[in-house]
Amino acid sequence: MDEVLADPIHKFIQLYNRDYGIPLDLIIEPGNEVYHHMPEHINNKWFEYINEKGFFRDLRLIEGSVEAVKKLQEHHDVYIVSAATEFRNSLEDKLDWLADHFPFITWRNIMFCGDKIVDVDVMIDDRAKNFIGFKGRKLLFSSPHNLLLKEYERVDTWEQVLEKLL
Amino acid sequence: MDEVLADPIHKFIQLYNRDYGIPLDLIIEPGNEVYHHMPEHINNKWFEYINEKGFFRDLRLIEGSVEAVKKLQEHHDVYIVSAATEFRNSLEDKLDWLADHFPFITWRNIMFCGDKIVDVDVMIDDRAKNFIGFKGRKLLFSSPHNLLLKEYERVDTWEQVLEKLL
Repeated sequence: MDEVLADPIHKFIQLYNRDYGIPLDLIIEPGNEVYHHMPEHINNKWFEYINEKGFFRDLRLIEGSVEAVKKLQEHHDVYIVSAATEFRNSLEDKLDWLADHFPFITWRNIMFCGDKIVDVDVMIDDRAKNFIGFKGRKLLFSSPHNLLLKEYERVDTWEQVLEKLL
Repeated sequence: MDEVLADPIHKFIQLYNRDYGIPLDLIIEPGNEVYHHMPEHINNKWFEYINEKGFFRDLRLIEGSVEAVKKLQEHHDVYIVSAATEFRNSLEDKLDWLADHFPFITWRNIMFCGDKIVDVDVMIDDRAKNFIGFKGRKLLFSSPHNLLLKEYERVDTWEQVLEKLL
């Protein structure tokens, strides 16, 4: 979900802006996480934000995600598999957010997990760690933190996902 | 989780007892679900109960489950995979219940899903529908509703699971 369907980075920057005046047009440099751009005394604050109820409830959509998932669903079984069990307060928010934006994905096709031990043919993910042990085709969805990785098949946009999978 | 680690049937009977005087020592007959033993005008009530916050928070443990999972974990990667996304209000309760009773299972090894599309070697489940499409070894954990099924390797207790898997 995060950085593939939903945009937590924008939300982090909004919260850092609200609380510490971090500029809203902050660009996260390739290979960096949002906290690499924060002063040291507040660079752990993201972990508090992400654990708050509501953090995941109003995230912006990643461009083109709704339309692309809808199109993929015409030809494939699409599952939304989110590493969410680390964050107790994210579970209801994520389910509600999906109901708002992806109402065509039913509860049967939603999975909140830790390790992504799924038996599927293709995994689209921004975190390379989720590809460990996965035997299918791996599509690394571009996000600032992964831009320096060279060893994966990469997709920069949902348009590129559709080009590859349809 | 349900009917394998946790006991929702006992809770259903408690609630039906509280609201309608259904006897607490009700035995569910082989092949039946709890609602097959309720008068027609209240046999859908279970669906309201299960959707209430708190339903899953205080379920009794299935006998021997904690000790058995702990022992299995010494030799295997154990994942708890629960069909939970159908019930929004169950998610936090299930995570909290697991933290209480199975604190040795971390968030990485917990999965709340719809379809159980997991890439694992062995699945222990009371619902035969969850075995559809699963290529590994299937252990049907006995529960009243599945007692008439003949076509699966069956385990009646957690002791039997350990005998088979250790």
